[in-house]
Amino acid sequence: MKLICSKSNLLKGVNIVSKAVPSRTTMAILECILIDASTDEIKLTANDMELGIETKIEGNIVERGIIALDAKIFSEIVRKLPDNDVVIQTDSTFKTTITCEKAKFNIVGKSGEDFSYLPFIERTEKVSISQFTLKEVIKQTIFSIADNDNNKLMTGELFEINENKLKVVSLDGHRISIRNIELKDSYDYKKVIVPGKTLQEISKILPGEAEEMVNIYITSNHILFEFDQTIVLSRLIEGEYFKIDQMLSSDYETKIKINKKILLSCIDRATLLVKEGDKKPIIINVTDDMIELKINSFIGSMNEEIDIEKEGKDILIGFNPKFFIDALRVIDEEEVTLYMVNPKAPCYIKDEEESFIYLILPVNFNASAN
Amino acid sequence: MKLICSKSNLLKGVNIVSKAVPSRTTMAILECILIDASTDEIKLTANDMELGIETKIEGNIVERGIIALDAKIFSEIVRKLPDNDVVIQTDSTFKTTITCEKAKFNIVGKSGEDFSYLPFIERTEKVSISQFTLKEVIKQTIFSIADNDNNKLMTGELFEINENKLKVVSLDGHRISIRNIELKDSYDYKKVIVPGKTLQEISKILPGEAEEMVNIYITSNHILFEFDQTIVLSRLIEGEYFKIDQMLSSDYETKIKINKKILLSCIDRATLLVKEGDKKPIIINVTDDMIELKINSFIGSMNEEIDIEKEGKDILIGFNPKFFIDALRVIDEEEVTLYMVNPKAPCYIKDEEESFIYLILPVNFNASAN
Repeated sequence: MKLICSKSNLLKGVNIVSKAVPSRTTMAILECILIDASTDEIKLTANDMELGIETKIEGNIVERGIIALDAKIFSEIVRKLPDNDVVIQTDSTFKTTITCEKAKFNIVGKSGEDFSYLPFIERTEKVSISQFTLKEVIKQTIFSIADNDNNKLMTGELFEINENKLKVVSLDGHRISIRNIELKDSYDYKKVIVPGKTLQEISKILPGEAEEMVNIYITSNHILFEFDQTIVLSRLIEGEYFKIDQMLSSDYETKIKINKKILLSCIDRATLLVKEGDKKPIIINVTDDMIELKINSFIGSMNEEIDIEKEGKDILIGFNPKFFIDALRVIDEEEVTLYMVNPKAPCYIKDEEESFIYLILPVNFNASAN
Repeated sequence: MKLICSKSNLLKGVNIVSKAVPSRTTMAILECILIDASTDEIKLTANDMELGIETKIEGNIVERGIIALDAKIFSEIVRKLPDNDVVIQTDSTFKTTITCEKAKFNIVGKSGEDFSYLPFIERTEKVSISQFTLKEVIKQTIFSIADNDNNKLMTGELFEINENKLKVVSLDGHRISIRNIELKDSYDYKKVIVPGKTLQEISKILPGEAEEMVNIYITSNHILFEFDQTIVLSRLIEGEYFKIDQMLSSDYETKIKINKKILLSCIDRATLLVKEGDKKPIIINVTDDMIELKINSFIGSMNEEIDIEKEGKDILIGFNPKFFIDALRVIDEEEVTLYMVNPKAPCYIKDEEESFIYLILPVNFNASAN
């Protein structure tokens, strides 16, 4: 194989597919990037068997062929090459020479034959969504997937398509994040659980242009995202997702409107008194036109008052501050509305149209000690 | 004690003195920042017994007093406060209230009486150097101090003042870095060894203005740096520094001029084939008008040619690439000159006036294997 392409094109492609290279594996071939120039296109592929990414790069194929190169070494070499045309040449023993200007690297690759190609996916119905929206939706929900594997379903996100509505849900047992999106077209009903890792990697490589689209294809086992010159193919998580609608309620006893930035920086300040692993709640005392936030730890105490608009009853309620910070950070609105029922019932942060809903469970606290 | 000062002034001061707070210590009082408002000035001090930093901040003293506050917690609180006036108030039990806008923190401080004040230093002769120059000189030499305590002398830098010349030297047994500076005034002969840690911290807090000066005072045990509203006081390292002049030679058999940036990026590229801890040398083959750099590791091999101007003999010599990278990174010149004698003698990188001299010992290598 012999091909010539610009360093910048090569680097862009390598950076994209590297997201699917597993960090630890017992199969050395999975730690490779496949360069496939066996047809008229140069394709880079990485595949950890759960998640596979393939991207096409522009370049000139002098001699067709395929080679698998260690992803880490290859990407470091490409990154450090001068900004000029790169020649990649292999021989029958998989010896690979990478030349750019006067710099010449020799490394040993592996046979492309041993590489696990991405499975073939039949592309029937295509769901289209803007790159910008997909990237936003992932950012606004991904933080509340579970961070361990105890419950596999919680490590993924629900993608539910109903006519022209897309609902994306994540939950970890303490909170639920929901985004409702309106799509341009209507589609057949679909409901799948996409691994959190897949979504994290996609949001890293999605350029996020509002004008550009991502096409999504869903089969019984896989989901395929197609954008620009790239496809991302992921297995789905099997099983029946949680019945979200049964967990939600629109009743409330207390409704408050509050400036998001002020609330966020106040909670952020309060958390510096809480060491990692320490489970000190932030206590919110809602009275007329004002809330007082308090935190008490062995380091010290902090309190702060914030002006609000209130409807309904006063309430004294405690939360894990991290859950509030996570949700507030990804909300774009300047002002947020909180709905609460009682100190043992979930608090909702949501907008009028329910384009986003963040449900956060309160925590018990000793009111007299605070 | 009660004082009022702007968050930005307070934060600036806290950031400066925090550099002298030890990361690990058995004496809790050393982990504190002392706020001394017992006179008409507000002074912040931190002191790890080797290195002490004191800085004055502007503010309004409502009630005089002193307090020692845990450096980590205090600086985190200050960092996260709103950008407005901060009130710090203490009572007789060292309870401290920090208030800014509607945010109010309560923490418990320690008696300022227990704090180790900086020792008194008699300021006799003052050596002046521009902030910019001192910062540059530290950057250009600090990388070649020894990174372990096996030889205490090697963890510091020689500061030698001879009339209007300042010579700064660091060495770690494999290389020597020397900077020669011309001072504006002439001074009595002085020769001291300044701890590397002191210099690292000073270079972090020095604004580095070319117009602003640092005043340096030297006693038999201490060195004091004074700039802006800050003083940095450090113990000196005791002992007789290495006889540098005996190690240097100006003889050479090969002299080459080479573009610094090209050489640096070439060596940088080569090192990606070397894993941490692996001691693969980079082989430099100097022939007429050209050098070839080669590196060979179990990952692969790399070679590259660079055009040079040469005087003298051809030479084949090997080096630890890191030593070259460290020196080349801090040299400002576009073109550097290398002087070599033979594959077992040190290589010098220096300018005509010897304002900088970098001596690097070569390493043995198996020429036939490369």
